[in-house]
Amino acid sequence: MSSTNFTVMDDEIDIVIAALHPDLTPFLNAWRPIFSPYHLTIVKDLDMKEELIIPDGFNVDIFTKSDMDRVVGSSSAILFSGYSCRYFGFLVSRKKYIVSVDDDCIPVKNDDGSVVDVVAQHIANLTSPATPFFFNTLYDPYRKGADFVRGYPFSLRTGVTCALSCGLWLNLADYDAPTQALKPELRNSRIVDAVLTVPARTLMPLSGINIAFDRELVGPALFPALRLAGEGKFRWETMEDIWSGMCVKVICDHLGYGVKSGLPYVERAERGNAADSLRKEWEGVKLMEEVVPFFQKLKLKRATVKAEDCVIEVAKEVKDQLGKVDPVFGRAAEAMVDWVRLWKAVGSGSS
Amino acid sequence: MSSTNFTVMDDEIDIVIAALHPDLTPFLNAWRPIFSPYHLTIVKDLDMKEELIIPDGFNVDIFTKSDMDRVVGSSSAILFSGYSCRYFGFLVSRKKYIVSVDDDCIPVKNDDGSVVDVVAQHIANLTSPATPFFFNTLYDPYRKGADFVRGYPFSLRTGVTCALSCGLWLNLADYDAPTQALKPELRNSRIVDAVLTVPARTLMPLSGINIAFDRELVGPALFPALRLAGEGKFRWETMEDIWSGMCVKVICDHLGYGVKSGLPYVERAERGNAADSLRKEWEGVKLMEEVVPFFQKLKLKRATVKAEDCVIEVAKEVKDQLGKVDPVFGRAAEAMVDWVRLWKAVGSGSS
Repeated sequence: MSSTNFTVMDDEIDIVIAALHPDLTPFLNAWRPIFSPYHLTIVKDLDMKEELIIPDGFNVDIFTKSDMDRVVGSSSAILFSGYSCRYFGFLVSRKKYIVSVDDDCIPVKNDDGSVVDVVAQHIANLTSPATPFFFNTLYDPYRKGADFVRGYPFSLRTGVTCALSCGLWLNLADYDAPTQALKPELRNSRIVDAVLTVPARTLMPLSGINIAFDRELVGPALFPALRLAGEGKFRWETMEDIWSGMCVKVICDHLGYGVKSGLPYVERAERGNAADSLRKEWEGVKLMEEVVPFFQKLKLKRATVKAEDCVIEVAKEVKDQLGKVDPVFGRAAEAMVDWVRLWKAVGSGSS
Repeated sequence: MSSTNFTVMDDEIDIVIAALHPDLTPFLNAWRPIFSPYHLTIVKDLDMKEELIIPDGFNVDIFTKSDMDRVVGSSSAILFSGYSCRYFGFLVSRKKYIVSVDDDCIPVKNDDGSVVDVVAQHIANLTSPATPFFFNTLYDPYRKGADFVRGYPFSLRTGVTCALSCGLWLNLADYDAPTQALKPELRNSRIVDAVLTVPARTLMPLSGINIAFDRELVGPALFPALRLAGEGKFRWETMEDIWSGMCVKVICDHLGYGVKSGLPYVERAERGNAADSLRKEWEGVKLMEEVVPFFQKLKLKRATVKAEDCVIEVAKEVKDQLGKVDPVFGRAAEAMVDWVRLWKAVGSGSS
């Protein structure tokens, strides 16, 4: 199957970075060959007191607490702190495609020493079709040298629009704190050279470390809504991305968009002591036991055809069904409603 | 996550080979380092007139037309010719695990020149759990060096029993005749170093070229039922494996077993002219447009808890719903009922 990529102009892409570290010099210099053609939206963690240090040579807009106060006001249920600050970038961006990589990640090198182009791979994932309704055993059928295998229905070979691309991680993979604590030596050193569509109605744990999405299609469904009581500044102390990922997957399934997982990889640096986080993490681990059955059963109304309306509908179900289980869910539902209100107010409404 | 493989004894494994070529010497010599510890069940295509040539040094039982006549009788709706002859081996085998590889495949070599152990990989797939209810972005969580990622519910981390392992193909991949005819140069040269569970309720085109399964669990669900009018001796002229694959996947989903896809690879030799097969193939291609929506909607009764009873129930639905679309489906339903009757008569009933 030949790829049906259409041309994406560089100015349709925004690289959104949540700055959890004040000095972004090593991070941005490592990514310079990849990121420099694009606009960068950098959002400073509102808990961070230090001045941001951004090296020269990038086309960058920086957003800080004062921008958030101006745009969001003080009444919102949404808190743009820690990893959640990057969602402010999703909100104020004016680009069609968002690529977001955590600031503790560096590029993976190819065998010849060149840097893996994470942006090109994410955009290729987003602009070639997805195949959520039937599994292709040879993975991405649109990749050069691949195709649909015998038995794949021809009526499904045109695929559907891909709205979300989830990349992976070398070295420190996105394990939870219990796993890290139990296996402190565990590192991912294996690149699986594949991209696949996560099938429709199959839920997945979306990691926010290395993602890209079509903001016009599903921007309203990527939000910081679920905040753990003990949320910290390490990925394994957060669940905002996992929660938003369950919502956006259900919404993509409902709207007929695809979600891909696989390439590109980024390399994650070492940081944090998982054993220290273990107590906090169990909150998130326990919540997932409620979250997964809820989303597995969730069916959206056929008449709901816009991403923002889907978010409102999911929020209502969350409040009604999960709200009584734990107050964290009631707050998440409130934040989702606030997010859609903000999205519309900022003029980010989907086209 | 540590692998929970239990020990499989060599005498629990049967290698079932459909002999479509009279001289199996090159095939078996190529596989000798892998196959020689195991029992081989070789079934001769009943259309083949020549004597079979089997090299020395294997523990082998050979079955031919006279065995089929004796076991099956003349009244059966099932025809064990061409690729379908191997199902006779599935029927008469007394082993727990079946590994089946087409006789036009040779082993893939590792970088060091050693031969990839297709049996060991299939058995590893079958004896480690499957995870059909939630997608793990790092693929098989039980593989050495891997685990479940953050957000994966702990209650689902024990997984379920894997009943079916579907391997892949290098060189000539399992494409249909139209694809081969359109892209005669298309070859698969990329090994994706991964095994994944095909999620529950996701259908897939099962290729019979390189598979393994737990015969006690799902043996009754692997049968030669759908026979194309123009069925030939090339894979792209058949659909018996695709049809059986849709049935067994639905039955695994219903019974709570997993199906895996990925490693191991085999290398497929060149043969046949796809352009010549093109006219025949369209029959299968057209049928899939009816087959897929049928299986996507199919729900088995909760009370049906044995594989053979599931097959009977699927057959009834096939007859009722698809029988009026094309007589080929009515014949398939009849063959499935006959298969279960045979399975019980031969004493192959699941334990």
